[in-house]
Amino acid sequence: MEKKPHILVTNDDGVNAPGLLALAKEMRKIGEVTVLAPDRNWSASGHVKTMHRPLRVRHTTLADGSKVFCSDGAPSDCVALAILGFIETPLDLVVSGINPNANVGHDVTYSGTVTAAMEAAISGIPGIAVSLDSPEHSSGPFDFKPAARAARKAALLLLKQDFPAGTLLNLNVPGIPEGEIKGWKVTRQGQRIYRDKLVKREDPRGKPYYWIGGEAPTGIEEEDTDFGAIKQGFISVTPIQLDLTDMDALAVLQTWKWRS
Amino acid sequence: MEKKPHILVTNDDGVNAPGLLALAKEMRKIGEVTVLAPDRNWSASGHVKTMHRPLRVRHTTLADGSKVFCSDGAPSDCVALAILGFIETPLDLVVSGINPNANVGHDVTYSGTVTAAMEAAISGIPGIAVSLDSPEHSSGPFDFKPAARAARKAALLLLKQDFPAGTLLNLNVPGIPEGEIKGWKVTRQGQRIYRDKLVKREDPRGKPYYWIGGEAPTGIEEEDTDFGAIKQGFISVTPIQLDLTDMDALAVLQTWKWRS
Repeated sequence: MEKKPHILVTNDDGVNAPGLLALAKEMRKIGEVTVLAPDRNWSASGHVKTMHRPLRVRHTTLADGSKVFCSDGAPSDCVALAILGFIETPLDLVVSGINPNANVGHDVTYSGTVTAAMEAAISGIPGIAVSLDSPEHSSGPFDFKPAARAARKAALLLLKQDFPAGTLLNLNVPGIPEGEIKGWKVTRQGQRIYRDKLVKREDPRGKPYYWIGGEAPTGIEEEDTDFGAIKQGFISVTPIQLDLTDMDALAVLQTWKWRS
Repeated sequence: MEKKPHILVTNDDGVNAPGLLALAKEMRKIGEVTVLAPDRNWSASGHVKTMHRPLRVRHTTLADGSKVFCSDGAPSDCVALAILGFIETPLDLVVSGINPNANVGHDVTYSGTVTAAMEAAISGIPGIAVSLDSPEHSSGPFDFKPAARAARKAALLLLKQDFPAGTLLNLNVPGIPEGEIKGWKVTRQGQRIYRDKLVKREDPRGKPYYWIGGEAPTGIEEEDTDFGAIKQGFISVTPIQLDLTDMDALAVLQTWKWRS
């Protein structure tokens, strides 16, 4: 009998988020699961390495009674803690999510969900980020099961295949009934259209403060992209790399007069 | 006479960092400069969009007496505030830095300096991140002038050329006397080697806490990369894109059995 893979489950919404529980339950069907997740919400927190203060880790319990760890660090800190030795058993896979909003297009560098998987990829450990494209004006509760099952499928495929180290999978699942999901699409990263607006308010003492507000982001619905796929009812899987070099622009830059 | 370009200067070390002053002074030679920078250090803070709390902006003064803005947001928040309308005059360029450590290889997604320029690129505004590869075991003061002059050169070239929207320039300048700098190299993103170690301590009450510690990162010294160039004494300029799709891995993923 083969050894079960050791899977770290984390997220950016905090250890008590229902998306994490759904993901952990599904991952337990295919591996030994360790949960180490932030003790609070870190949405749109980016790729953090906390070095200016120490991190605490404590035991807590999920809603199903399972014993897990949480930390006062960011999602990527949780992954770093685990990989650097807080978790003694070596990890075979890091799965992050399930985020209750899609992480597509330019979201990937902001997203705590994606940057947690990025942290794994930097250490050469396969990583998967999982997000549910929940309906825009609903505050839930959401059915995370279809996304959790999609994550299990992707994890099984990833664990048994040869795949470039340093590349992670970014999974986005449409927030529609599972029977209506049309299948899978391997996609490229699409284009987000942010609709952020600056909202100026005054505090009770007449001093201004500013919210980054506006409507939720939309995107350009191209067929072969992450955003296009989920809008058409497909599960989107996008390979995300850590090399951000724009090779076309590099050729352009080489023609510029740097020396003069 | 042409209209002077409007340049936003920000950083991730906080508005009072000497690298920001050196950069702002040099940028004033080629444009109208607005400074809006974080009021504290945000190193390795990643790409942040603060939406769970409002942001404050206040006036402050740099060491040369110039009037600037600072905010309690992250570097990328400062750029968002400016672009979304806190700064009324439209921006032609965002320059972020000067960071007193190199931002090369995998640093780019962690780096507040780089993600500030990324935030500009997402909004279609040219962005430059500027970092000085200061000597490893020195705590300064550093001579930011050569890096500031390199930033001015890059800004001048970028402002007068056609360059892909959504791509930013990541500049790294070797921390050696200006006369010893060998010239410029257009590079690709290299490979960092992180040497992080988990350092466990106990607080006075016997409870453990954890530092992400270890030695400063090194890297693989390849000739055509950011890390390789600065180690050989060249100024490195790397085009960084927002599309993180791994196209080779995409072809691999398309051969996997997603449907079964």
